[in-house]
Amino acid sequence: MAELKNDRFLRALLRQPVDRTPVWMMRQAGRYLPEYRETRAKAGDFMSLCKNTELACEVTLQPLRRYPIDAAILFSDILTIPDAMGLGLYFETGEGPKFKRPLRSAADIDALEVLNTAEQLSYVTDAVSMIRRELNGSVPLIGFSGSPWTLATYMIEGGSSKDFRRAKALLYDDPDLAEVLLDKLADSVADYLNAQIAAGAQAVQIFDSWGGALAHDAYLRFSLRPMKKIISKLTREADGRRVPVVMFTKGGGQWLETMAESGADALGLDWTTDISLARDRVGDKVALQGNMDPAVLYASPEAIRSEVARILAAYGDGTGHVFNLGHGITPDVDPEHAGAFFNAVAELSSAYHRV
Amino acid sequence: MAELKNDRFLRALLRQPVDRTPVWMMRQAGRYLPEYRETRAKAGDFMSLCKNTELACEVTLQPLRRYPIDAAILFSDILTIPDAMGLGLYFETGEGPKFKRPLRSAADIDALEVLNTAEQLSYVTDAVSMIRRELNGSVPLIGFSGSPWTLATYMIEGGSSKDFRRAKALLYDDPDLAEVLLDKLADSVADYLNAQIAAGAQAVQIFDSWGGALAHDAYLRFSLRPMKKIISKLTREADGRRVPVVMFTKGGGQWLETMAESGADALGLDWTTDISLARDRVGDKVALQGNMDPAVLYASPEAIRSEVARILAAYGDGTGHVFNLGHGITPDVDPEHAGAFFNAVAELSSAYHRV
Repeated sequence: MAELKNDRFLRALLRQPVDRTPVWMMRQAGRYLPEYRETRAKAGDFMSLCKNTELACEVTLQPLRRYPIDAAILFSDILTIPDAMGLGLYFETGEGPKFKRPLRSAADIDALEVLNTAEQLSYVTDAVSMIRRELNGSVPLIGFSGSPWTLATYMIEGGSSKDFRRAKALLYDDPDLAEVLLDKLADSVADYLNAQIAAGAQAVQIFDSWGGALAHDAYLRFSLRPMKKIISKLTREADGRRVPVVMFTKGGGQWLETMAESGADALGLDWTTDISLARDRVGDKVALQGNMDPAVLYASPEAIRSEVARILAAYGDGTGHVFNLGHGITPDVDPEHAGAFFNAVAELSSAYHRV
Repeated sequence: MAELKNDRFLRALLRQPVDRTPVWMMRQAGRYLPEYRETRAKAGDFMSLCKNTELACEVTLQPLRRYPIDAAILFSDILTIPDAMGLGLYFETGEGPKFKRPLRSAADIDALEVLNTAEQLSYVTDAVSMIRRELNGSVPLIGFSGSPWTLATYMIEGGSSKDFRRAKALLYDDPDLAEVLLDKLADSVADYLNAQIAAGAQAVQIFDSWGGALAHDAYLRFSLRPMKKIISKLTREADGRRVPVVMFTKGGGQWLETMAESGADALGLDWTTDISLARDRVGDKVALQGNMDPAVLYASPEAIRSEVARILAAYGDGTGHVFNLGHGITPDVDPEHAGAFFNAVAELSSAYHRV
């Protein structure tokens, strides 16, 4: 493997000194980029793009050619796992993801087998290997997975949901059965992330997109606990370096103290949390990643720069800060506005570092 | 006016002793009730129901005939204000509310005139008067309004929105102009709530449905500040009793300490906040209203009862607690499940009071 030339991102996640705050953007390889839309059109539908090693690699690299970004993230989807577990993922035009065989009974949950990534998701690890090779040491590669609770919502509801009525009814009606499912998913996610690490991922992020929809007690039991199980099973070193783990619960700002005890190296923050208060609350236990409101990208480049400046100043001394949005960039943002974001971090953040 | 027979709700909002925890439910007059659906069918569309004094009164009273509820809430919609301000509210089948003339420029905002409730929304105050008369002192009547920021999102976006891109772009691109709009809305809401109080509302609630979508600093400036302005202008006594104010920011759990300094008597909590920790954080400054996850109503009556018990126990001594959901009841909940919720509070909560 080529030596890593830019390791700001990995160092910041471990709260080591860096020259400026590293930055990447959730969904940085995505529809807001015309070159992404072109590649996707070649692939056909969204899952065909995920499953095409060359094209998944291509879209992963696209934003790095435009902007000063400090990490690449595997282009894939969180629903690869339930698809590989036999639920039959499909997309209907104009609607979200759907499953042909959602979990509808205790028997469905009992019948579910823990994922074997090597056998069932080699297209993901192939993409990781190729991207890592193509990056050629320029920046580190992030692997990722959805959290068990987040995956469970899609598997139980049969697709996206506004209120998670079936998934939540399971938690309250049969919490033990819910734990059986979440444990199988935790084991599956651990296998999946370890396979990505073996294939070349240098850091991993767990996306808990829907943990923030849970009541406090339910979050601790049904979302945080399985994520802790995953972290306890992860390979934490590769190529002689620590592989940092980022845990991101959208809407999880009330639970940061507990999340900081989970074994994660860093916590993702959505934009509702004041990053200065968050830092006080977690102390030196974890690094923080975030957290500009993605909607600021609809404002002018000047407003974007000024919001980046505000967040850098709120965090203060930049050790242990990875700049990001508080959630993914949306499809109709102007790519120049994304550029204003990346450039502002690159230009303004060195004042907060002493290296 | 008839003397108030059940004042648990008003007393609890002022943290005065009561015999058991009072309870009501956001959207308790709503589509989950077959009698509501029948009345609505008579009225025609949703806004015709809001504007028909007799029928709005009828649906307000319906849940009180079924369940042991300690407060009635005016049946209306938060979008009455922008409609009366000239934006032209309409509903398209299968879609949310829309405005014919959304705010698209500084000139649109400058042209906007502060609401005169007596002239422009007499159908609301007529409904308040009639409901108060029909309640005949059985339980108190809650008036309400949307918060300025929440109203502004609909007025700027022209309807519902997932990411509030136009409204947020205004906040970041032209914060002073945003404040002009939010101040006009604060003045309008104050006029509207004072008119409801004059017509007979015995408590008022400000629904800040979308404050939780804002970044921390933006929440303080663009949502909390105008709500404080409203509270400072409200009539706080009627019929020789204090008129309590409840402030409810959905997703506002991170900001409770600041909200507790706003002048509100009580804060609404959504279900993501642990009510025990919330109580520690606000101390004796405000009462708390909440906070069961509405999705629990999809679980069994036993599970509902057990979740009510858990929340009562988490709050502890019941002084200053009004039980509620953490958000509105959803249309396809079984009315028997709603009954399990109300009955559980009525039956289990006296153990937490010493009166």
